[in-house]
Amino acid sequence: MEKKRISKAVINRLPRYYRYLGDLLEKDVVRISSKELSEKMKVTASQIRQDLNNFGGFGQQGYGYNVEYLHSEIGKILGLEKQYSLIIIGAGNLGQALANYADFERRGFFVKGIFDINPRLVGMSIRGIEIKNVDELEDFVKNNDIDIAALTVPKAKAPQVAADLVKWGIKGIWNFAPTDLNLPDDVVVENVHLSDSLMKLSYKLSEKRKLAD
Amino acid sequence: MEKKRISKAVINRLPRYYRYLGDLLEKDVVRISSKELSEKMKVTASQIRQDLNNFGGFGQQGYGYNVEYLHSEIGKILGLEKQYSLIIIGAGNLGQALANYADFERRGFFVKGIFDINPRLVGMSIRGIEIKNVDELEDFVKNNDIDIAALTVPKAKAPQVAADLVKWGIKGIWNFAPTDLNLPDDVVVENVHLSDSLMKLSYKLSEKRKLAD
Repeated sequence: MEKKRISKAVINRLPRYYRYLGDLLEKDVVRISSKELSEKMKVTASQIRQDLNNFGGFGQQGYGYNVEYLHSEIGKILGLEKQYSLIIIGAGNLGQALANYADFERRGFFVKGIFDINPRLVGMSIRGIEIKNVDELEDFVKNNDIDIAALTVPKAKAPQVAADLVKWGIKGIWNFAPTDLNLPDDVVVENVHLSDSLMKLSYKLSEKRKLAD
Repeated sequence: MEKKRISKAVINRLPRYYRYLGDLLEKDVVRISSKELSEKMKVTASQIRQDLNNFGGFGQQGYGYNVEYLHSEIGKILGLEKQYSLIIIGAGNLGQALANYADFERRGFFVKGIFDINPRLVGMSIRGIEIKNVDELEDFVKNNDIDIAALTVPKAKAPQVAADLVKWGIKGIWNFAPTDLNLPDDVVVENVHLSDSLMKLSYKLSEKRKLAD
């Protein structure tokens, strides 16, 4: 595979390709043209060809893509051939939702621990994993090979928790706290800012309303 | 305000500006230069000026931005001067997390109803709002002025639920189901695809690893 800089927009589309191809696989579709894939995904066919050419292309002219091969190759690009160990900090509704989401396991993300500060939650189990006290977090991270920490803690606590996790060796933070974390360059942060998403929705709604007026 | 096409990248940054300015307001900061704002937000100062110029600019040369004014103007652009009525379809962990998120109210998003199919959940209350049976959804939507429906239902159910909601008059869908919805053009959809986000994280982690090797 060629080593070049892949744009953020392409990276944003890759999980969608992977998801769509997974759906096609489940329906036993063996082969798909970029035209069909483009209709399903509402991206132009040339966009799809261009995106995939970033990774050497996978199709044959007039022959389309082999769904299983393309799914597996995109999976490799996304790093999904590896398994990831995940811990969840914050066992509130959102943390529990993540812990209960079986789909993640199918993609190779395994929840190894859940931590909270609330004594009413500590000791409870979610899908067989006991919620531990955050007191145990440092030892746990240092003694287990954890790739990703999902942060579902309040905004005010997130920066300190993230800094501690990084100090103890975590390289991937999946941040749900509504704040941007300031972490070293060798740490990867992926943010899920729910209120930002809701504001984008209200922006689009108010734009539609202006057009309708 | 001039009427021009605002790029998706700018729209994606607006909620972040709004969030940062809100943080500054809470700290009683009255005025900020684009340089300071850029250091906080890790966006170049010229990017900030360029973004805000899309909306007529709000700063004075050498004088910086008035935080309260800029916050309120960006709020208006984001449609936040209006209040939104929201319903949640699916009262599992994720739906409950949304219902419990008090921050949304502060921004003008009010949860008016929560619906589920599970008899063990129906009748329970979350922050004073009773979970109703989905049987009542049609009447509720038709008899209340609901702006946004948050969809936290399983992937297989999402397309039908969304189609029904749109038929009954909903114009904004906040979709958490891991599938893309195919809805009429006058309906606004904002997706929160958690597994896509996790795949982006694994992509970035594996890229870092390649660089380290």
